[in-house]
Amino acid sequence: MAMKQKLKVVKIGGNVIDDKDSLASFLTDFALMSGYKILVHGGGKKATQMASALGLQPVFVGGRRITDEANLEIAAMVYAGLLNKTIVAGLQSRDCNAIGLSGADGNVIEAHKRIVKDVDYGFAGDVDRVNTQMVSLLLQNEMCPVFCAITHNGQGQLLNTNADTIAAEVAKGLAADYEVELIYCFEKNGVLLTLEDDNSVIEKIDPVLYSNLKEKGIIAAGMLPKLENCFLALNTGVSKVVIGNPSVIKANQQKFTTLSL
Amino acid sequence: MAMKQKLKVVKIGGNVIDDKDSLASFLTDFALMSGYKILVHGGGKKATQMASALGLQPVFVGGRRITDEANLEIAAMVYAGLLNKTIVAGLQSRDCNAIGLSGADGNVIEAHKRIVKDVDYGFAGDVDRVNTQMVSLLLQNEMCPVFCAITHNGQGQLLNTNADTIAAEVAKGLAADYEVELIYCFEKNGVLLTLEDDNSVIEKIDPVLYSNLKEKGIIAAGMLPKLENCFLALNTGVSKVVIGNPSVIKANQQKFTTLSL
Repeated sequence: MAMKQKLKVVKIGGNVIDDKDSLASFLTDFALMSGYKILVHGGGKKATQMASALGLQPVFVGGRRITDEANLEIAAMVYAGLLNKTIVAGLQSRDCNAIGLSGADGNVIEAHKRIVKDVDYGFAGDVDRVNTQMVSLLLQNEMCPVFCAITHNGQGQLLNTNADTIAAEVAKGLAADYEVELIYCFEKNGVLLTLEDDNSVIEKIDPVLYSNLKEKGIIAAGMLPKLENCFLALNTGVSKVVIGNPSVIKANQQKFTTLSL
Repeated sequence: MAMKQKLKVVKIGGNVIDDKDSLASFLTDFALMSGYKILVHGGGKKATQMASALGLQPVFVGGRRITDEANLEIAAMVYAGLLNKTIVAGLQSRDCNAIGLSGADGNVIEAHKRIVKDVDYGFAGDVDRVNTQMVSLLLQNEMCPVFCAITHNGQGQLLNTNADTIAAEVAKGLAADYEVELIYCFEKNGVLLTLEDDNSVIEKIDPVLYSNLKEKGIIAAGMLPKLENCFLALNTGVSKVVIGNPSVIKANQQKFTTLSL
């Protein structure tokens, strides 16, 4: 069997996108990364600002945000329009041949409207299928796919989908054909032993340490579903998951968390 | 020499996009068109509505609209985000493998900020180059490119570019490799002999008739630059230009204008 080619799937969130200088610096680092790569970006504050400027009130049920039609329109505008194209144009100016994608483009991510149990989340999409052939076609033609957090259901409906999930699903889907490293960039230096101390990065977490940290309550709240998804990705063929701040994609000179089986 | 493959480049404007039923009906017809095809769409009223909802005043100089930074953001949001993705998802639901593109995506259309002579049009882009290799790659992989009216300058700046121009430039660029038919859909049935009579369609216009119609003042005002561009396209290798209402893309059962050399 031929060796698989390496592929990095990098996810950035609002903290990078909201600050012009942070974004510019990240894009420079990302453009310099060698080999196959994919970028997935979240939303940042712009969608919230737009909603508020248009007089829309965000709708929350049980602490979770509901995507009604007006907010879906804003998500499509801000994520797939302004942010995605700003990022793509920024990468192009750095000689990285980026191509922006929503899930509808080339039918690259099909999803379904989240099933209503207790709560109707509105136009929130759960991923069914990543069109890995399409993503591979772009990669093999020296393009860098840039995914925003918009998918579709194949029946003409756009859907708002969590960017962390998109990154994990894309990584898992491509793991059959590539040796995939999934890199989550966020505001901390990694998974922290002490939440207040950004130097207390836990450098390696395997399933044994993970269940240990869970039991002690060191990993809790928002980090719990994030790490569950990471281990699910590892169990579904992704080779390595890294969690750190946006400069984690640069040459290895800082602390970050590596998850492995 | 091998026969060139046929390619249709279809441009739709605001009148189709603004009405949900018109758009649905057009997309159904477009999805049924056989062979290689490309869609280019303009903006419609949504961008103006958004600008007004956000309290922005449109800026005009000498009757022409100026794209300032705030209006460029809205154009990127509405054209490349909401409209482009709604159209792409609509085509996907009709089994047409559409892929939405701004000029930045895959560096597919490079432009420059319009040179300031008397008027600074702001972030208005004039097209320099269509990446025909990229467009061909998508076509040959059974995708249908869907262009919005946003380009980039290769240095990270998005630009607002007239959709008629994008359609003409894409058609001209691909004419080297394909037998290209350029189809402009607008609110009339074609070029009219009497502006008020939508049945007075001039069915064929060649350069001789064109200069004749210009002399008599029958073609004037807004149609003049449109037709100048059409003849320029014909002189640059495009095989045929058609002007008609959106159902012109259906089987030949109605009146429309064909331009030829």
